[in-house]
Amino acid sequence: PANKSLLVLPGDGIGPEVIGEVRRVVDWMDKRRAVSFNVEEDLVGGAAIDKHGIPLADATMDKALNVDAVILGAVGGPKWDELPFERKPERGLLRLRKEMQLYANLRPALCFEALVEASSLKPEFVSGLDIMIIRELTGGVYFGEPRGIETLENGERRGINTQVYTTSEIRRVAAVAFELARKRRGKVTSCEKANVMESGVLWRQEVTKLHGESFSDVELEHMYADNAAMQLVRQPKQFDVIVTDNLFGDILSDEAAMLTGSLGMLPSASIGDVDDTGRRKALYEPVHGSAPDIAGEGKANPLATILSFAMALRYTFDHGEDADLIEKAVQQVLARGIRTADIMSPGATLVSTEDMGKALLEEL
Amino acid sequence: PANKSLLVLPGDGIGPEVIGEVRRVVDWMDKRRAVSFNVEEDLVGGAAIDKHGIPLADATMDKALNVDAVILGAVGGPKWDELPFERKPERGLLRLRKEMQLYANLRPALCFEALVEASSLKPEFVSGLDIMIIRELTGGVYFGEPRGIETLENGERRGINTQVYTTSEIRRVAAVAFELARKRRGKVTSCEKANVMESGVLWRQEVTKLHGESFSDVELEHMYADNAAMQLVRQPKQFDVIVTDNLFGDILSDEAAMLTGSLGMLPSASIGDVDDTGRRKALYEPVHGSAPDIAGEGKANPLATILSFAMALRYTFDHGEDADLIEKAVQQVLARGIRTADIMSPGATLVSTEDMGKALLEEL
Ligand SMILES: CC(C)[C@H](C(=O)O)[C@@H](O)C(=O)O
Ligand SMILES: CC(C)[C@H](C(=O)O)[C@@H](O)C(=O)O
Repeated sequence: PANKSLLVLPGDGIGPEVIGEVRRVVDWMDKRRAVSFNVEEDLVGGAAIDKHGIPLADATMDKALNVDAVILGAVGGPKWDELPFERKPERGLLRLRKEMQLYANLRPALCFEALVEASSLKPEFVSGLDIMIIRELTGGVYFGEPRGIETLENGERRGINTQVYTTSEIRRVAAVAFELARKRRGKVTSCEKANVMESGVLWRQEVTKLHGESFSDVELEHMYADNAAMQLVRQPKQFDVIVTDNLFGDILSDEAAMLTGSLGMLPSASIGDVDDTGRRKALYEPVHGSAPDIAGEGKANPLATILSFAMALRYTFDHGEDADLIEKAVQQVLARGIRTADIMSPGATLVSTEDMGKALLEEL
Repeated sequence: PANKSLLVLPGDGIGPEVIGEVRRVVDWMDKRRAVSFNVEEDLVGGAAIDKHGIPLADATMDKALNVDAVILGAVGGPKWDELPFERKPERGLLRLRKEMQLYANLRPALCFEALVEASSLKPEFVSGLDIMIIRELTGGVYFGEPRGIETLENGERRGINTQVYTTSEIRRVAAVAFELARKRRGKVTSCEKANVMESGVLWRQEVTKLHGESFSDVELEHMYADNAAMQLVRQPKQFDVIVTDNLFGDILSDEAAMLTGSLGMLPSASIGDVDDTGRRKALYEPVHGSAPDIAGEGKANPLATILSFAMALRYTFDHGEDADLIEKAVQQVLARGIRTADIMSPGATLVSTEDMGKALLEEL
């Protein structure tokens, strides 16, 4: 009986292709494992703009609020670049994050052993790399008011955004980071620019306070965000868990993901608090974007999105065993030398998005 | 006759050590070349706090406004970390930038051929790397109002900063980037988050407009800042000139500097407009920071600061030949295998800060 509900939002660019392969895996679970899903599919981003004129319809938002988990492909592309700000594809994703109150974005930067060579870094810097970046996702400059573009008396224009964080916003995301660190290597690095921004001063103070109150068994380190951008390049393995705000998290998590050479392999989870019905709202998506340059060509790597589904199995549905199965199958496919273009290396077998999906099913 | 004036601000940490070696080079110029300087030395940052209680005395600010060029070491360190925001060492540097109106910060990310191996990236990604990052330096979230920390009625605190840019602030720094690109490989990449921030939308529009009006011979590309953080790791050589705002520039320039493996070698220039007296205000400083962990140990690399002085010779004093001399001497010292700890490699000769300065003078 399909007591588990999943909303699937392919989005734009390579989104539909990679989500297509996830659906294969979901179907396989249905048939072979004791877990079956009620899957609905809907539009987000440019695809929703083309159909409804807005990047996320209210009906889709409602669905997202009422399922157990959302799996998203990617949003955005040059086709919608000229649209006014409020109607850009990205607003659809931002609305999901905000209304589902997904304040903690978990972005692992993990180097798959079979892919060490795909990194631009020397193997000794990335082999075994395993960082977890916790990015605050519903606050900061992404949502702060006032914002906008105004015209001044002298005819000039002025663009404004507001970076703002409150005590509770900082504490709840820091708590997620500390808790995760306990299950990992026990170290949290908190990043801000407390040397130039008051919001960073508050961030540092609140993280320090929470640490002293409830997590003093975890090692806490503070690092300016610019230094973190350097240290990630210099010696990435010094990090365990990084916690930072929405904007710094956007940049540092992308940098860290690219360091691994495994960008097309990296899943992410965005989670909120547990609600009255005992459900923790969650959205799972690959770290990579919509890659419009290769969309529709069957070149995209579906593994990041498939691993995002595995994260859903583990965290939302408490089916760790099934998640293990998928993760092992991914390892085996890589061990067999099967590669999409993004992770191709000499001597390996280059396959399409679909063939990668099929190869994974074979392993399963 | 010393018709040229220089204000030297060693600052904190390794600042005094590296500035010490610059003074040797200045003395050498005095004696051997047709260029002599009126050098004054003063305090900034933690050193100024210890003496005056504030990170930049008004008298020092006055001097800075009246010399031809300022050479700065570095500011900051754990000793002053607990000070209230307005009295932190960094405020001294920020005050200099703001009151001298140094709106364009030129940060080269250059890989010295002799140091390719010092990078964590594979040689093929960094050999020959030569990016120029133009960071806006007097606007954005560094200086925007309102800012501060307030206590709310429910007892929570809220930290606020404001990201703000006007038409003219964007145009003047973009013009610097386009002009530099013309003397280089003819390409500018402008970075913002126009997909989530209105200030980024304005940035993109104004850069595009200026490009169409006056620089259509230069290639212009727009890139989201998070993608730029990725692309710098993936394929750094795709960039020529990058222009971006104060905060993104802080992060991306540090990331790019670390990619080169030559961080201890990288100078920077911060420049303003030409004033009534025909003088273009300018401050030169190394890209690296105050490195409190190795301060006073004679381990610091003085070459970045010496090369900052070479930049001053070239840009402020129009003594390109003397700048050439210094830059060639640096190459020769490296070719001889002389290294400070930060750029040490097997088989090379490890020297102290002072010995590096002396080796450079020998080459001169
Ligand atoms: C698509 C965009 C709105 C988004 C962001 O800036 O958060 C993306 O870059 C990400 O990191 O998920
Ligand atoms: C010291 C600090 C204020 C400064 C900055 O954030 O601008 C530094 O990181 C830099 O990049 O020059």
